Amino acid sequence: MNTQTSTLVNGVDVAQLVATVNAIKQNPDLARFQFRAHNEWIDGGHSQTSIQGFYGAGQEDASRRKPFILDGDEPPVLLSGNSAPNAVEAVLHALASCLAVGFIYNAAARGINVESLNFDLEGDLDLRAFLGLSEEVRPGYESIRLTYRVKSDAPHEKIVDLCDYVQKTSPVLDIVRNPIPVSISLKG
Amino acid sequence: MNTQTSTLVNGVDVAQLVATVNAIKQNPDLARFQFRAHNEWIDGGHSQTSIQGFYGAGQEDASRRKPFILDGDEPPVLLSGNSAPNAVEAVLHALASCLAVGFIYNAAARGINVESLNFDLEGDLDLRAFLGLSEEVRPGYESIRLTYRVKSDAPHEKIVDLCDYVQKTSPVLDIVRNPIPVSISLKG
Repeated sequence: MNTQTSTLVNGVDVAQLVATVNAIKQNPDLARFQFRAHNEWIDGGHSQTSIQGFYGAGQEDASRRKPFILDGDEPPVLLSGNSAPNAVEAVLHALASCLAVGFIYNAAARGINVESLNFDLEGDLDLRAFLGLSEEVRPGYESIRLTYRVKSDAPHEKIVDLCDYVQKTSPVLDIVRNPIPVSISLKG
Repeated sequence: MNTQTSTLVNGVDVAQLVATVNAIKQNPDLARFQFRAHNEWIDGGHSQTSIQGFYGAGQEDASRRKPFILDGDEPPVLLSGNSAPNAVEAVLHALASCLAVGFIYNAAARGINVESLNFDLEGDLDLRAFLGLSEEVRPGYESIRLTYRVKSDAPHEKIVDLCDYVQKTSPVLDIVRNPIPVSISLKG
């Protein structure tokens, strides 16, 4: 007899979410994750990233039977063949998809039903640093603007509270807004 | 009569690269780019980003006839359906594909032929901040390790010089290593 109950809010199994949070409260080591990626250059501005295994919840994950493939490329004005979004566009994707997960999971935990959720993002970048033409401008985005649009029957102040909370706990927003140590080595 | 000459190094048209750099030297406003993304939440941890138009080189780009679609999702252990890499994995992709473009374009500009180039990346993340279980750990990566592997007939010291230069001028490495201002607004 299957006595498991599933309570889906926004497509999130809230019982499983609560169980996950409780398991990590008991054993904080379960919260340690290591994510990985392998990238191979193809030609010109085109490269390809494979993403499959990771470590988390105390073990190697084996849920992905084949790797996800993400391509990166540049448009013709940036000297390549336009076969995929470029790297700084991929950053905007990472930021939006992180806030989407954070918003939806935390909404589910608070019993807030979300009808729709979307984001528009813009990032301003001066290419002179990348091209070695200026040491006064930075290589990355000078600024990013992001707009949430939410439809929900929850009171507006609950949505505002939720957005504030999500921004404090978003991994990618932290990565973009604050310094992350990156160690780099060259082999072969 | 077509008198245009094309000099491909690593698949990069070096004549076009030099012309681009010279045009921006003459008119620095051509270096101003604005990249954009739109993300729609689908269900649970799954959302979808559309990337198409951008502003750059003094005009709206119209080279992409349809949008690129990037999916974001979480694996079952993180409560979703594993339909795509998650947001922090997408950050690793963005970082690698940025360094790939920077390495290949600058190698071309220096006349260095690259036979192969790949990257392995690992990022350590403690999920307790995302789950609201600790204010002592940060939401984003605690650290990222990245290894380049390069095959080229150029002398090793030239490859080391090139890697150093690429790291100083990489947009995504700057975004990850240093703070980027992000302004966020909620509409609707």
